[in-house]
Amino acid sequence: MDGFSFSTEVKVRFAETDAQGIAHHAAVVVFLEVARVAHLERYAGGYQAIRDRGIEALTTEVSLRYHRAAYFDERLTIWARCTDVRGARFRYEYRAMRGGELVAEGHTSHAVVDRSTHRPTRVPQWLAEAVAMAESAVEP
Amino acid sequence: MDGFSFSTEVKVRFAETDAQGIAHHAAVVVFLEVARVAHLERYAGGYQAIRDRGIEALTTEVSLRYHRAAYFDERLTIWARCTDVRGARFRYEYRAMRGGELVAEGHTSHAVVDRSTHRPTRVPQWLAEAVAMAESAVEP
Amino acid sequence: MDGFSFSTEVKVRFAETDAQGIAHHAAVVVFLEVARVAHLERYAGGYQAIRDRGIEALTTEVSLRYHRAAYFDERLTIWARCTDVRGARFRYEYRAMRGGELVAEGHTSHAVVDRSTHRPTRVPQWLAEAVAMAESAVEP
Amino acid sequence: MDGFSFSTEVKVRFAETDAQGIAHHAAVVVFLEVARVAHLERYAGGYQAIRDRGIEALTTEVSLRYHRAAYFDERLTIWARCTDVRGARFRYEYRAMRGGELVAEGHTSHAVVDRSTHRPTRVPQWLAEAVAMAESAVEP
Repeated sequence: MDGFSFSTEVKVRFAETDAQGIAHHAAVVVFLEVARVAHLERYAGGYQAIRDRGIEALTTEVSLRYHRAAYFDERLTIWARCTDVRGARFRYEYRAMRGGELVAEGHTSHAVVDRSTHRPTRVPQWLAEAVAMAESAVEP
Repeated sequence: MDGFSFSTEVKVRFAETDAQGIAHHAAVVVFLEVARVAHLERYAGGYQAIRDRGIEALTTEVSLRYHRAAYFDERLTIWARCTDVRGARFRYEYRAMRGGELVAEGHTSHAVVDRSTHRPTRVPQWLAEAVAMAESAVEP
Repeated sequence: MDGFSFSTEVKVRFAETDAQGIAHHAAVVVFLEVARVAHLERYAGGYQAIRDRGIEALTTEVSLRYHRAAYFDERLTIWARCTDVRGARFRYEYRAMRGGELVAEGHTSHAVVDRSTHRPTRVPQWLAEAVAMAESAVEP
Repeated sequence: MDGFSFSTEVKVRFAETDAQGIAHHAAVVVFLEVARVAHLERYAGGYQAIRDRGIEALTTEVSLRYHRAAYFDERLTIWARCTDVRGARFRYEYRAMRGGELVAEGHTSHAVVDRSTHRPTRVPQWLAEAVAMAESAVEP
């Protein structure tokens, strides 16, 4: 995928469909999270590792455009990349594909907070570096 | 409802329907929880009050029979009662009705644990009494 | 709420919380849908009525900014308004409030399609008028 | 797994956790469905194939005992077997394992109905045979 070097796969569960016979739009928000968690696992030791170090990443923004409906049991490829790490914030971009078709695209923003106080805290150096390394691996 | 003195209402959300055009069976499990939380709020100061006292109620069993499908936007009445409090455990029974029709019935079991250690602990006296009082209010 | 004349209430369910101890961000997407459905019920005879007339409203865009975390059992007021009806598309805007505090704000876009073919179709006149009437009722 | 010949894997999603820090009990109901769908895919051409032949399988019963909490990002193995096919009904049994530990066990019952009328209809011969073949493959 142009500009993306990481993806994960999800299969639309029956519980995720709705009475329109398609994957409910809120299910796709969860698919983005699945991809983000898998990306962090690959490049930053996992989201649980982040939590274990005493920080949480709150979701501060979700934005999604749905181009095609996805159906029960379809396999979707969710491409994800971390596009910005700045201060206490980072941002991910996504594309959800079914084969060569664009199902949805969007981004999420996150704020890093102290796990106990929920106060904003800088993205730790090790996390910023891990993410930078991930994205530098993207083929030009 | 025969043998029940407490109920709460839910409306089937579109997100809770599935491609069969009905409320997904896992959604009904959540409806039971909504009724249980409302029951605890009425009779025991609320589930949050329970958590604030340092205990959690883990769900150890869910059993549900589905008699009729429920559809989008239908209003269901979820009847709930606490039928047994013993040691570190308590049990709820439920009926989900649409008007006079039985949609589903079932029960859940719960174990009271210390919130920090997740070790079993006796159902506190105040909670046992609150629940007993609730059920003694049932019309014969 | 400034510029909004319609709202509905939701209570954060335990099933909607996550391991951060807050309402999961995807749950708020569902809250918007609850408000949209309630708005259509008030002003356009209900979403089911729309479906019964052979059309579906697909969600084509979701955009949400989260300003504050919402917690278990909190009551949120979801303000909703239909801000644009054009051709086969309409758009809703939302604010999710906890008392006087802004929890989240956002918008969704929708495409009206024929229910059997899923092909785009103009927003029916009766629906456009119903929505226009709804918003003309907003206090200046 | 003793008596089971089929399993599928799920990973606990963050969206599936709750404020107790564990996988919400309703999420496990969905895990059973994921395993059932995968089992039908392996042995009966897939649930979608079943739907394409004009029948639906409604869930009429869910029963689950939770033995251990499952946590975010844990990989669970969901064992599933079809244990009974009779008339218009069939039944599945499940065990959810984390490594060698039993997380949950339970069963679901299903009624086969005509997809358009939702009236009960016999489990088709091809489906009954497929399922019987699946279970005869179990190692003694």
